[in-house]
Amino acid sequence: MSTSIALLGTGLMGLPMARRLLGAGFNLSVWNRDSSKAAPLADEGARVAGDANDAVRGATRIITMLTDGAVVENILFETGVVESLAAGATVIDMSSIRPSQARNHAARLAELGVHHLDAPVSGGTKGAQAGTLAIMAGGDQLVFDAALDLFNAMGRPVRVGPSGAGQLAKLANQAIVGIAIGAVAEATLLVSEGGGDLEAFRTALTGGFADSTILQLHGARMQSGDFEPRGRVAVQIKDLDNVLIEARELGIRLPLVEAVRDRFARLADELGGGDLDHSALFVELLDLNGRSQAPRI
Amino acid sequence: MSTSIALLGTGLMGLPMARRLLGAGFNLSVWNRDSSKAAPLADEGARVAGDANDAVRGATRIITMLTDGAVVENILFETGVVESLAAGATVIDMSSIRPSQARNHAARLAELGVHHLDAPVSGGTKGAQAGTLAIMAGGDQLVFDAALDLFNAMGRPVRVGPSGAGQLAKLANQAIVGIAIGAVAEATLLVSEGGGDLEAFRTALTGGFADSTILQLHGARMQSGDFEPRGRVAVQIKDLDNVLIEARELGIRLPLVEAVRDRFARLADELGGGDLDHSALFVELLDLNGRSQAPRI
Repeated sequence: MSTSIALLGTGLMGLPMARRLLGAGFNLSVWNRDSSKAAPLADEGARVAGDANDAVRGATRIITMLTDGAVVENILFETGVVESLAAGATVIDMSSIRPSQARNHAARLAELGVHHLDAPVSGGTKGAQAGTLAIMAGGDQLVFDAALDLFNAMGRPVRVGPSGAGQLAKLANQAIVGIAIGAVAEATLLVSEGGGDLEAFRTALTGGFADSTILQLHGARMQSGDFEPRGRVAVQIKDLDNVLIEARELGIRLPLVEAVRDRFARLADELGGGDLDHSALFVELLDLNGRSQAPRI
Repeated sequence: MSTSIALLGTGLMGLPMARRLLGAGFNLSVWNRDSSKAAPLADEGARVAGDANDAVRGATRIITMLTDGAVVENILFETGVVESLAAGATVIDMSSIRPSQARNHAARLAELGVHHLDAPVSGGTKGAQAGTLAIMAGGDQLVFDAALDLFNAMGRPVRVGPSGAGQLAKLANQAIVGIAIGAVAEATLLVSEGGGDLEAFRTALTGGFADSTILQLHGARMQSGDFEPRGRVAVQIKDLDNVLIEARELGIRLPLVEAVRDRFARLADELGGGDLDHSALFVELLDLNGRSQAPRI
């Protein structure tokens, strides 16, 4: 019998990831708190379990794709899942949680003889469907190598370092994204106030040092005022808060992250933009400058 | 006789740009304040003039590639060059100067019946040699269209708007680059302090939302401590100062540009880093955090 994989959490990301694993021929059991989200996978070859304990029974590799660190902690340690795991099993946590939480989980599992990898992803639901997720992993090299067959079915894995390093890389990723949105907002305001054509501006910068997906994609959203959420402001704030918590634990200050975090928080708290796309930081900049032509918010 | 082009300023950028024009078969006269820098072009088919007035005689299109707005102003308006121009001639200023200076030059030339384009570039000496410069142009559409033959010999021209818009786009470009360097510095510090592998980190982010040339290129310089200048800190400060002058004239505040400008200034004034590559902002961040392992400065 082939080794079995359990996937806990079949939400927006977990569902297409499960489909990639089934497509690659893995023997998969799944569980989701809201069971209706896991049900469709039964027809596609997965065993849909009634609870997390049942899902992990007989599995040698357990993938978690859950909301945050508290939920991961609850499911793993407070519902009896770890007791159901055989020594030598591996927990692969692909949720985005704080690095210190990931290190804590790894240490507690190690005491039970269970391996742990933190392996958060970037690339959204599109990347999950296409199997092109950026997978940022932390943990032992041998454990990482043994998970490559599974990672390769879902995306492009890179081991960034020891336990927690995957979560750390994800936070650094989110820090760059948040600040880059702030930079593109200021460039967009400058060019637009100075009478330049924003589309031509972005075309002119294509391929140069200032170019990025954020310039082209989020810059266009700022111009059109289309703030339909792909990356929500509230999530961006949570991510930046986690960056700052981690920085504090490491004893370092990150001034641009701090500044941008406060601006996103002002957008959410004072301007009611928490549910908008994070490119709506442009609206906060317009407001800061007393420009009333704020796009629809 | 084919129409003639004069190019004033054959420095680091002007020299390879002159070669591109000669290679495309244009009839070119050149002048440089330090004549030794123009001399090599004589063997390549250019007429090397003894002064700027001589260079522009008979030219219908005059390209300026000079240090800053004050030098452009001096050469055009205080040495008699404009008096030597025929009505209907076009001045194409490819120097990086302030947008308001460019608009001023355009207005003064218009009174003499002389056209003006501001057309600063991005891409460095490599882009100038390869003819792949990003050319950000401001001015009348018809004047821009008439200059395309010449622009196409040097790079990829995009008209961003009316007079001054090319300079505005260049400033916005520099604003994004300066802030992006700050973002990559903070991400690099976070990952390195947290024990992650910086090279693996950059690899993991490749192709995602946080990816950019600044992450890959300047991030690698931060890791290795190689701050051999390609873009100098002092020039970055001058550019950000010009961004803030323009913003003030437009009545807007750009808080991230302000913050990053002050950090680059601290790097230059307090840490002696004015002649380093702008990626050395990482050293300023290390210093801010009391980390003494600053790479060689």
